[in-house]
This record gives sequence, C-alpha cells and structure tokens, in this order.
Amino acid sequence: MTGPTTLTGIGSTPRTGVGTARWYRGGADLTLPDRPDPSTVDPAIERERFEAAREEAREAIRLARDRAEARVGGEEAAVFDAHEAFLDDPGIVDDVEDAIADGTPAEHAVRDRFEAAIGQFEGMDGRMAERADDLRDVRDRLLRALLDAPTPTDLSTLPAGTVLLAERLTPSDTAELDPAAVAGIATVAGGRTSHAAIIARSLSIPAVVGVVDALAEVADGTEVLVDGEAGEVVVEPGEKRRAAALRKDDAPVVPEPVSTADGRAIEVAANVGSGAEVPPASDRGADGIGLFRSEFLFLDRESPPDEEEQYEAVVAALEAFPDDRIVVRTLDVGGDKQVPYLDLPEEPNPFLGRRGIRLSLEEHADLFETQLRALLRAAAHGRDGNGGGGSEGDGASDDDRDDRGGLAVMFPMVSRVEEVEAALDRVESVAADLAAEGVDHAVPELGAMVETPAASYLADALAARLDFLSVGTNDLAGYVMAADRESDAVADYHDPLHPAVLRAIDRTTAGAEGTDAWVGMCGEMAGDPELTELSVGFGLDELSMSAVTIPAVKERVREVDSAEARELAEAVLRCETRAEVRDVLGLDE
Amino acid sequence: MTGPTTLTGIGSTPRTGVGTARWYRGGADLTLPDRPDPSTVDPAIERERFEAAREEAREAIRLARDRAEARVGGEEAAVFDAHEAFLDDPGIVDDVEDAIADGTPAEHAVRDRFEAAIGQFEGMDGRMAERADDLRDVRDRLLRALLDAPTPTDLSTLPAGTVLLAERLTPSDTAELDPAAVAGIATVAGGRTSHAAIIARSLSIPAVVGVVDALAEVADGTEVLVDGEAGEVVVEPGEKRRAAALRKDDAPVVPEPVSTADGRAIEVAANVGSGAEVPPASDRGADGIGLFRSEFLFLDRESPPDEEEQYEAVVAALEAFPDDRIVVRTLDVGGDKQVPYLDLPEEPNPFLGRRGIRLSLEEHADLFETQLRALLRAAAHGRDGNGGGGSEGDGASDDDRDDRGGLAVMFPMVSRVEEVEAALDRVESVAADLAAEGVDHAVPELGAMVETPAASYLADALAARLDFLSVGTNDLAGYVMAADRESDAVADYHDPLHPAVLRAIDRTTAGAEGTDAWVGMCGEMAGDPELTELSVGFGLDELSMSAVTIPAVKERVREVDSAEARELAEAVLRCETRAEVRDVLGLDE
Repeated sequence: MTGPTTLTGIGSTPRTGVGTARWYRGGADLTLPDRPDPSTVDPAIERERFEAAREEAREAIRLARDRAEARVGGEEAAVFDAHEAFLDDPGIVDDVEDAIADGTPAEHAVRDRFEAAIGQFEGMDGRMAERADDLRDVRDRLLRALLDAPTPTDLSTLPAGTVLLAERLTPSDTAELDPAAVAGIATVAGGRTSHAAIIARSLSIPAVVGVVDALAEVADGTEVLVDGEAGEVVVEPGEKRRAAALRKDDAPVVPEPVSTADGRAIEVAANVGSGAEVPPASDRGADGIGLFRSEFLFLDRESPPDEEEQYEAVVAALEAFPDDRIVVRTLDVGGDKQVPYLDLPEEPNPFLGRRGIRLSLEEHADLFETQLRALLRAAAHGRDGNGGGGSEGDGASDDDRDDRGGLAVMFPMVSRVEEVEAALDRVESVAADLAAEGVDHAVPELGAMVETPAASYLADALAARLDFLSVGTNDLAGYVMAADRESDAVADYHDPLHPAVLRAIDRTTAGAEGTDAWVGMCGEMAGDPELTELSVGFGLDELSMSAVTIPAVKERVREVDSAEARELAEAVLRCETRAEVRDVLGLDE
Repeated sequence: MTGPTTLTGIGSTPRTGVGTARWYRGGADLTLPDRPDPSTVDPAIERERFEAAREEAREAIRLARDRAEARVGGEEAAVFDAHEAFLDDPGIVDDVEDAIADGTPAEHAVRDRFEAAIGQFEGMDGRMAERADDLRDVRDRLLRALLDAPTPTDLSTLPAGTVLLAERLTPSDTAELDPAAVAGIATVAGGRTSHAAIIARSLSIPAVVGVVDALAEVADGTEVLVDGEAGEVVVEPGEKRRAAALRKDDAPVVPEPVSTADGRAIEVAANVGSGAEVPPASDRGADGIGLFRSEFLFLDRESPPDEEEQYEAVVAALEAFPDDRIVVRTLDVGGDKQVPYLDLPEEPNPFLGRRGIRLSLEEHADLFETQLRALLRAAAHGRDGNGGGGSEGDGASDDDRDDRGGLAVMFPMVSRVEEVEAALDRVESVAADLAAEGVDHAVPELGAMVETPAASYLADALAARLDFLSVGTNDLAGYVMAADRESDAVADYHDPLHPAVLRAIDRTTAGAEGTDAWVGMCGEMAGDPELTELSVGFGLDELSMSAVTIPAVKERVREVDSAEARELAEAVLRCETRAEVRDVLGLDE
C-alpha cells in the first residue's frame, strides 16, 4: 500500500494523532508438547506445577489490575477481578485436578478445560463472547507459566509515537497502554461503546475502531494518522493533511464557563468514572462534573465502601471544583455491571432487569441509605454550616442554581414517578436521622437520569418533583430503539440521531419546560461537537462528556446562536429518517 | 382450613370455574439404588439399557408433542422438540456413555450428567431456569424408563370437575390437560405471561397463578372456585358465591359486530397462534382475527414451510371468516422465539436484539419474500379476480375499510421508518414478480405493530405510510418500562397501567389522527373487560384478544359511551402513578 490512502471506521476517541504503525498480534506461541502416555505422568508433580502456574498467573493479573486502576480507575480495572476469579472457579480447578489425577500433564489439562469453557461462550455474541476472550487471557497466562513462554509484547513500554494496529484489543490490552507513548489506535473489530473503546477514551488516546477494510495491509513502520473525530485512518497522510488534522484537534482549553454567541450560559461538564479522572477533567476546562459514576467506589473489592470512604471521595471531587457543581449518580449496578458481593441474580435480559434505583429501593436499601448519608454530609461541605437544616427535598437547591456550585445527586434507571417519591422519602428520612444525631448535613440538588422511554414520557411529572433531569443518551437510545448497546448485530439501531430518540429527548426537555428543573445530558451525544448546536437547540442547560472533548465543545458553544439552534432542532424533529436528520445537520450519511 | 376462604393470586385465564381440588405433586419416586462397585457393572449391558431408555423417552415425548399440537397448536407444542433434542445432545449423550464405559450404571450416569446441566441453569432466572425444568422433565423420563417406575398422574385423564392445584405446572403438564375435565387451575408459582399460563388461556381453562399464601393448606377433595378474572381462589365458596361467579363468567356469545352505546363500531377480534385456534375464535363471536401469529407455521419442524403451505393456511383462515379481516403478522422470531433451522445467534439481551422485521429485512430476506408471495396470493382469494393489479402500498385497502373483510399484513418490531419503507419496497417488488408471472394476487392492507417505544414516537410517520397500526401492549410495556416480561424480578414494572405506557399508547393513537390509518390493539390489555372503556377512549378501532374474553369485551363495548370514554382516557393521561390510574378506573390497587 503506497501513497495517502484513507480507511474508514468508527471514530471512538475524538482526537487525532500521527505516528508509526506497529501491529499487535497478541500472545506468544503456546503450542503444547505431544501428550505423553498417562503412565509416565506423575500427578503429584503436575498438581504442583498447576499450583505454581496459578500463583504466577494470579500475581500477573493483580499487577495488571493495579496498573489499570492507577491509569483508568477502578471501574475499568474490575475486569481483572473477573480474571482472577476464573483461577479459583471450582468448575475449572476441580476438573483440571481430576484430569491431572488421571495422568494428564498440567498444560494439557488446562488447555482442555479452558477450551471447553471457551466453546460454551463462543457461539454467543456481545458480552458473552467477551467472556470467552477473558477465558483465553487467563488460559494463556497459565500456559505461559507452564511452558515458560515469553510474555507477549509489553504494551506498557511501546516507543513514543506508536500507532497501534490490531485485529482486536481486549480491555486488558488497552488498559496497559501509555497515553504519552501511543499516538493512536486503529482496530479491525470493536464498536465505540465496547469496554476497550471506553478505556481508550478515558486515556484520551485517539482511536478508530471497526476499520474493516484493508487495515491488514498497513505495514509496520508506515506513517499513519488516526482521526478519531472523522473516523478515519490515513496511511502516509503527507505533511498537509497531518498539519491540518493536528491543528483541528487542538481546541484551546477554556477554564471559564462559556455562553452561546447570544449569551445563553451552557455548562460543559465532565463524566468521570473514578477519582483519578477528576484532576484531568479540571485540566481540560470542565465546569464541574455532570456525571460522577459512584460505582467505582463499589467495584473491585470484597465488600461495599463505608459511609466515611464515600464521603471523602465526594468531598475530594467538590474540593477539586470549588465553584462548580458535582453531580453524583447513586449506585447504578445490575444489568451488565455485576458486583460479586451484592449477589445479583443472573437475568436472561439483564438490560431489562433489576438495575439502578430498582435495586436501591428494594434489595439494597441498606447500601442506598449509607450512600445517602455520605452524600448529605458531603453536601454540607464548604457551605456556611447550615447543619441540621434542610430536610426539604428541594429546600437547599435554589440558592445554588445561580452559582452552579455544590453537590447534586441523581437517581439512575428511573421509570416510575413512584420511585422518585420513594427516593425523596429516603432522602428526607436520612436527613432527619442526621439532624437527630446532630451531624452536619444539607440536602443536595436532586435529579433523575432520563434513560428509559418511561422517564421521557413522564418528564413533566419527574421535573415537577426534582431539581433537574439528565438525559443519558446511550441507554435511552438503546431502550427507545429496543437495541442492546453491547450487541454488534443491532449496532446500527443504537444511534441518538434516529428520529425516535431525538423525539424522546425533545419530549424530555418539553416536559421540563414550565418547571424550575434544569435539564442536562450526559450520554455520548453531549460530547460530540458536531451535535452541540442541536443540543443547545433542544434547550439543554448542561452538557457532560469525556474530558477529552470539552475544549472542542466549549469552542462550538461560543459559536452557536440559540435562536438558530432552536430552528435547527425543530427542523430535525420534523425528520422521519436518520438520513434526513443527518442531511439537516450537514453530516455525511 | 374450613369455611369460605379467599386466597389471592394473579388472574391468568379470565374465566371462573368450580370443582374439586386435586393436588398434582409431579413425578413418582425416582430414588436410585446404591451405586455398585464399578467392576460388577457390564458397560455393554448398561449402554443397551441407556439406548432403550432413550428410545422409550423419545416415544413418550413425541406422543406428548402430538397431543399438545392437536390441542393447543404447533407453537406451544414446540417445547417438546427441545425435549427431544436433549436426548440427542452430544454434550449429554457422550458424557453418559463415557461414564458407563468407566463402570457407572446407566441410571447413575444419567442422573449425574443431568444434575450437572441442571445446576448450570438453576442459578439463573426467567427463561434460563425454565430450561432447567425442561432438563428435569427429560431426566425423569429417562429414569422412569431405567427404573421401570410408574408414569406420574396422567393429567390427560383427570375426572370431570377437577380443580388442579400445584406448586408449579410446566408447559408440558398444562398442554396435557383436558379443558372439558379441568374446571380450573391454581398454582403457587408462575406469572401470567409464562408459557404455562399462555397455554391455559389457549385452552380456556380458568386459571390463577402466583397464589403464594396458604394454597398448600387446601386439601384434596375440597370444593374450590377459581376466579381468573378477579385473581382469586375461593375455598368452600358456598352456593351464593358459586352461582354469582359462574353467572359473571357467562357473557353471551355475540356473533355480529358490536358498537358502543352511542354507535361507534369497535371490531372485537381474536389473537390466534395456530390454525386449530381459528374455529374456536369463530365460536366465541370474533369479528375476524386481529393477530394471526404466523410463527406457528415455522416452528416444530426441520425446514421452513413453502409458499403453498403458507398460502393454504392463510386462505383457510380467510374462509373461516368470510366477512371479516384477518391480520397476519409476518414472521416474528428472534428474542425468546428460537427456530433451530434459522440458526439465529444467541444474544446477551435477546429482547434487545435481532427480532421480527429486523431479521426479515436482512438475514432472512428469502423467507420474507416467500411469505410475502404467499400473502399477496392469499389476498386475492375471494376477491373479484383483480389479479395483476394493485402493486401500490395502499391501493387495495381503501375498499376494504368499510366492510372490514379480507387480508391485512403487519410487520413486527418496527422501530424505524426506514424499515417500513424497505418492507413496502419488498411488497411492491413481490407484486411485480407475481404480475410478471401472471399469478393472481392483490396487495393486502399493510400495517405495523407498535411495540417498541420508537414506534410510538414515530406513529405519525408510520401511519402516513401504512393502512393501520396495531399496539402490542405486552412488549410495548416491557420496552417502555425497560422491564423483561419473562422476569419475575421486574414483573411489577410490566403492566400497561403504568402512566408511561398509557402515554405511549396515547402518543400512538394521537400520531395516527389526521391520517387514514386505523389503530388496533392486540396485547393483553385489549382482552381485559375492565379496560375496554379506556381502550375505546384512546380512540382504538379494533381490539384483538384471546378468544375466551371476546364475549365479555363485546358486552362491555355495548355499554360504553364514546364521549365518556374519551373523558376517562384524558383523566387517566393526567395521572402520574399507577395507583392514580387504578383509582380513576375504579380498580382496587
């Protein structure tokens, strides 16, 4: 392949990088020796070898987890706990030990058992197939230990200016990358909501996934440009394209809040999935945190965090943004997010099961109460000591509207007004408890995620009871279109630009009109500078996104005229197909 | 337990029956003999015993399937194909044979292998747990054959006037029941959308499920009344309650179409899941078929039906209702409905995956074309030979609006206008092919199911392109509330009386206003006489339901005043909680 060639894929991290191509082809050669006659095998020795390999694998997994946690936070690092759990799965360990007892060498016993398990998952797709990849990871670690094979390419020590090309990167591969060294990623497989893609965005590494055509023909050493905004991989881009692309990516950081050209203030905040992501968000000019995923406090451990630990994590975020709002989402587990010690049931359709507020109001009311205690205490932090005061659901909030400061708390997966009423009751009762105990506290702003179609249809009733709503476009698109966001088979349905999704967003903002509630958005749509004008046109007050896109969105907000934006939104709402929507927005189909 | 006592559960088949209680406690004693020393076991003999047991079980399963198919149709009978498949599953058979080769008697080998498989499914809930029940069924058939144990209570020969009580009935148990003999069913477990409950409704057997309290204390021989409308089981009801309840159940059959008290015509049609259900629907006074589930033609076989077979099945239904409309839903597989020869992928969230029209437009375009050919040919049946004519999407339909006769075809799982446009293109191209071949055909009325939230938001655009919409309240409620209808854990979310679901229905009928499209409803809500006034108030033109509830709904339609009904609907749409909705409707919470 010679000359500038453009390969198209799906833009994942909307930044641009240029560097030298290097293929990553996964693990070393793990060919097994021939299987010996069982009578020549000493089960005692093989059992010891298996034990030693398990311990070696366990150490490697823990090391990988710690590295991932430091870089991208606990939520993403939790995948390694699942890996470690496979090492202790009695269904695997017992079978391997039985095979060894029957005269099978440890490496053959490991390979046979894992291949059976991998086969079970392999026929499935989406998340289940990912578990097959996890099993492969663990199998290879065990086999490497047993065969004394070299570890594969160390992704954490790639030379600066590397553009990594791969058929597919696992979350573990991606978590090892050094963002200072890796100028970009391009993969054949993957979607923009896969775990690997999300980790790459957390690391701000330019990334294009799903590059199906001709990526395989790009040779090591070629100069490659990865444009994660356009979803393009340019081979031998040439000086002009390189300079233009890098300039485009370089929106200046704007530390202060921004307004549209006609003066309408729009908060541009950050989504964070761990405490470690808070300082980079501030560096990119975030006006506070619009989605603080409290799950990271609960994942990757043996038991839930106590009140004090939660309090401190939230206070740390408040201190990092003394003038801005921090919106903490209460525990959102269930669905695809499992937490071993909560003992959540497996469900045939986990995205349509016990998730978010449903669990907080029922099975895990105790965890919810502890979390609310921590949050109400944190809400008093930095205030003028209004301690035993506000036990009213919306009492404490109005003062904060103007200066945008302080804590806000939102409930995930709301689909019934009854849930909000129950949650407000819990807040009131926690406030009363804290007051009785003489503990300093305040009631934060309270809101709901709009991610179920039900919440969009009930937006008026929800907004009347709450201080704010926040539209989660990823899950909302999935539920409105009845399309699993993790499934490649329906990936095309999972797009906020489908007219039905846009109408659900409009129903939400229209429902909140005439109430005092503000409306934000914290899905992927909020972080796409090409959709900023549309978001403003929908009447959103706040946009929250991966920190990396904040400068570009702020730059775009300043150019937008609200009246024109409203006209654009109205034109889009008249569209009946996605092609018409993209046409009105001036985007290529 | 003495005197009249009322136990509450979930009404499943909305009819009332009285009879004598009889407990069904499942299988016979299948205790295994002690495991002998392996050296005393002759693997050759055990292998023969296992083979003989498999064949005996296979015959019993096929007998059960044939009986079920004759009674309740192919769709429900397909569960027995899954049972037979377990007998040939190499993962089971090979392991059992290996254990036999190692000196395990056949019965122990069978039990061990099935228990391992059952254990894998047991931790899960919903549909996966049902597969554990299927495995238990098959295991017990094999063990009965190996142990020469008596077959369990023959459910097909219960004495007349039996009220069957059980902890849980499997679909296979239920399919064996003789509706002439069984006056009612009450079970501790189960939900109203379980397969067993659906089969009971097909058989018109009064049923209450989920009777958690005190059912166990009802002794065999007690007189019991099962009120499937109120969801009550009355123990020793007494003469008065018995007479009142039975009278209530006896709405007279009204063969002719009905109108509201103020003269608005409402079609009251039947949902059918097999050709065998067509004559009973006619007997109960159905104004045609509002949902003809074409899946039954595809299930329970090795390869898809050809064009001729599909044509004949539809023509048979048209001939059974010469003056009425037959609405055929095109193939709706995927999700929970698997068809082995279609080789559909397993998906982590099958309800959010490749289903219905999504498959018909892509992977299974060939099946869709064959089905459309059969349907366009059937649409010409009984018409005045307008053969090569109508290839316009709505050309053939306007004439039929007034007399309600003829064929209509609707597409399931629509979530994009693009899908409807593609489906209309396919219809047009099939019509052109038939015209070129000189084959007699016509274009039927064409419509879409409204079961995704997207379809409710796009109802205006869909109605502008189609002759009708049909609201599927079961799936619509599931998707709007983001709650799997098969999962007990979120059963409370799965109710059309949640305000969000009612607003989605209203958005659908409001969207169709001002177009020429009529709007029907074919979910469970349509068949509930307590909700008939509300359905009329929403402006629905047609209600389609299990045949059993047609007389009661027709009776109710005649009492309704459209203007009052509209006021009721408006009052309900102002409600923000289900409790308010039930209060406005005068229902107990």
